[in-house]
Amino acid sequence: MQNRQIDKSSPMPYHYQLREIIREEIRLDQWRAGDQLPSEHQLCEMYQLSRTTVREALDALVNEGLLLREKGRGTFVADPKYLESWSGSAIGYSDSLTKQGLLIETRVMEMTRIAPTPALRKELDLRTQDEIFFLKRLRYIHSQPILVVDSYIPARLFPNLNEIDFRTCSLYQTFRDVYKTPVSRVKRVIEAIAANETVSALLSIPAGFPIMYIENTAYTQSGAPIEYYTAWRRGDKSRFQFEHSVP
Amino acid sequence: MQNRQIDKSSPMPYHYQLREIIREEIRLDQWRAGDQLPSEHQLCEMYQLSRTTVREALDALVNEGLLLREKGRGTFVADPKYLESWSGSAIGYSDSLTKQGLLIETRVMEMTRIAPTPALRKELDLRTQDEIFFLKRLRYIHSQPILVVDSYIPARLFPNLNEIDFRTCSLYQTFRDVYKTPVSRVKRVIEAIAANETVSALLSIPAGFPIMYIENTAYTQSGAPIEYYTAWRRGDKSRFQFEHSVP
Repeated sequence: MQNRQIDKSSPMPYHYQLREIIREEIRLDQWRAGDQLPSEHQLCEMYQLSRTTVREALDALVNEGLLLREKGRGTFVADPKYLESWSGSAIGYSDSLTKQGLLIETRVMEMTRIAPTPALRKELDLRTQDEIFFLKRLRYIHSQPILVVDSYIPARLFPNLNEIDFRTCSLYQTFRDVYKTPVSRVKRVIEAIAANETVSALLSIPAGFPIMYIENTAYTQSGAPIEYYTAWRRGDKSRFQFEHSVP
Repeated sequence: MQNRQIDKSSPMPYHYQLREIIREEIRLDQWRAGDQLPSEHQLCEMYQLSRTTVREALDALVNEGLLLREKGRGTFVADPKYLESWSGSAIGYSDSLTKQGLLIETRVMEMTRIAPTPALRKELDLRTQDEIFFLKRLRYIHSQPILVVDSYIPARLFPNLNEIDFRTCSLYQTFRDVYKTPVSRVKRVIEAIAANETVSALLSIPAGFPIMYIENTAYTQSGAPIEYYTAWRRGDKSRFQFEHSVP
């Protein structure tokens, strides 16, 4: 961290500049996951900054999930967030992440056949007597729980879906390969929320922790809805990238 | 809330069912923003549920931002989140939200001409001597601060940009109408993070509050980057919708 200094003549606030420097050093791999940062005191000396400024820069990076503060031990570079691309040909969670060589494991917490609520019946365009499969999965990346996903799937379209082993099979790959009904388009709504007790217990994080909450409807080529899910993902481990072009 | 009851024969957990019922009632406008919900005790009686179950359902809705709990007063229906569509022809913040009839106000906190950091120089494809405008705005919806956005704009492409009054003008509309350089595509990365002290003070929320953090690069039709921004938005007020099709 010798090469870059704070530009005191710049109108850019010092804590911005310091944050940008540390961010850049991490991006350039001069600091790696698990590395301990110099103490606040040392950073003050290195950059000739006040304690308040240094702390503000570090706080911002901790809150973004780039740094971790461990009580009594110091500040460390966090494991990187997993960047998932929401454009291109990978449309499901497994597709996008396994392409990056990440080890994904899945625990099936529930797979039952139930009557849909009125909202689900509407979202999935179901007839009065239609039932749905409720599939609840907890998904891990490198043995760490990252994502809870509750899927609702029209049973009429996917007979015997409950016989598939979703510990090893991806839902969207099953739609495509077993039922010849590939997902062609998804509509997503995303929000940043605080983890409730249930989700935080499943994801091994404190209640109140920032979570990416996702509602997703998947459609076939012909526009028929074939799955609706709600998902909760650890905010500190997830980044989503996508593009938007004006037609 | 008379018409729907918990289906005790369904394998869907009771707290899910109750959450779904309340959510549906709000969607159908049987409860409106500001309305007080029955007490936990009353809900237990109405739905024949345990206190734990009722609390779990309410906690989830509070954390999603659909309900608000006020100490000593009770539980209320929150103001709706603003849904912003990230598909179609509206590409900037003002465009998408004013279309919905929302009153947007903007406070310009900074507009200065500075030298870019190396990361910004790379992102904006700048030459060595190029400077940028740093535009920091706080944006309100119906007088409530919702969004902090830090924009970095190549000065060479937009001479005298600092003379525009961004309290009343939209940046992307200015690019299009004044400089004849419309934004044609944006690349976005989004994360859920905890608000730091600076952002929470600006947005009048407690530190640690869930925030949607967005990094955005805007390009012209020919692929030239013309703006990079980082933005922090209140999680409890923001929902983003978009679509993803497999090519």
